[in-house]
Amino acid sequence: MSDIRRRRLPRPVREQLIIDAAIGVFAKRGYHASSVDEIAELAGISKPMVYLYLDSKEGLFLACLRRETERLVTAFRAAAGPAPSPELRLRAGLLAFFTFVTERPDSWVVLHRQASELSPAIAAELAQSRQAVLTEVSGVVRTCSAEGAGPACAEDEADFVAYTLVGAADSLTDWMVLHPDEPPEGITVRLMNMVWVGMRNVLDGEVWTTPAGEG
Amino acid sequence: MSDIRRRRLPRPVREQLIIDAAIGVFAKRGYHASSVDEIAELAGISKPMVYLYLDSKEGLFLACLRRETERLVTAFRAAAGPAPSPELRLRAGLLAFFTFVTERPDSWVVLHRQASELSPAIAAELAQSRQAVLTEVSGVVRTCSAEGAGPACAEDEADFVAYTLVGAADSLTDWMVLHPDEPPEGITVRLMNMVWVGMRNVLDGEVWTTPAGEG
Repeated sequence: MSDIRRRRLPRPVREQLIIDAAIGVFAKRGYHASSVDEIAELAGISKPMVYLYLDSKEGLFLACLRRETERLVTAFRAAAGPAPSPELRLRAGLLAFFTFVTERPDSWVVLHRQASELSPAIAAELAQSRQAVLTEVSGVVRTCSAEGAGPACAEDEADFVAYTLVGAADSLTDWMVLHPDEPPEGITVRLMNMVWVGMRNVLDGEVWTTPAGEG
Repeated sequence: MSDIRRRRLPRPVREQLIIDAAIGVFAKRGYHASSVDEIAELAGISKPMVYLYLDSKEGLFLACLRRETERLVTAFRAAAGPAPSPELRLRAGLLAFFTFVTERPDSWVVLHRQASELSPAIAAELAQSRQAVLTEVSGVVRTCSAEGAGPACAEDEADFVAYTLVGAADSLTDWMVLHPDEPPEGITVRLMNMVWVGMRNVLDGEVWTTPAGEG
């Protein structure tokens, strides 16, 4: 750390180091108990410089949320985009998500566990982060019908499927904590099992009906 | 309100009125901005009496979380329990959930939107609330194999399915806000479409595989 401290670094590089440090502290202590002092110390920079670069503790937190959302969305897109079929696109996107959560647990704590009540600016940023992920997933879902894997699906149906997938994946990150030996690939396959056929049903406009002979 | 104020009510009744008032205020203002004054006023009781009954603002919030979790779990159980098949049990349970969210929007805000960072006691209560719901859903999922709807399913598989369902349903309450005209029945049918077949696959131990001819 001391060699980082001594070196003169360009501002963008220094900012990334501050954000790295901040994510670790926020994830460990929670927003309220985190101190800019500790973040500055970890980043090897003075506290006034942190304020100069990122304005406030809230500004720091917003910068963390923004950077990690962008990383998550980029990872999802980079994985899902090139896959050769809708099914494989979804698989690749889910795998990228569970891999992100496994490899960057602190980032996930900051994105997922923090309170939307912290401040109006943070609540807005969290909502925007969630929306960015939903838009990305919804885009992949929409391609599932655009390529003849089903009839053209209504926007609404794709959104419904995206909300279901995002909520399921979020919740499964809690399951992962209880099952640390299950790799991202295993979780992805289980979730594909659970949603792939049904997702096609919903996009095809099929309707579940009460089984014959049952009330 | 003034006739409530004037009447002498037994303590348990009065406590429920205080909790009713508190849920409305917490849902509207958030935990931090809520005042015990406003809650007392709404409940038609003096502030010292609120403290006497429920100890503190935190105590009030914990009482809200506990009561509404119990109501939600009870509604789920009452709906799912008597249904004659696993499929209909799941449908009935999901419908009870989406109906609860529709009919008690304030309760859902308190259960769902509040920050786990508010205090250690509140974080613990929220975790316990989530666990109670997961246990209930997992119980219904487990009966899906116990009745010949599939081979005996491993505890782990049932938990995986429960986390998926609970996360999906949570997330869909955000979708509901954007689609206020969709009744709980419609959302339930869509979600059944999406998860029923896949859930059976997972409980049966089927594994999704990369489609033939694709990388």
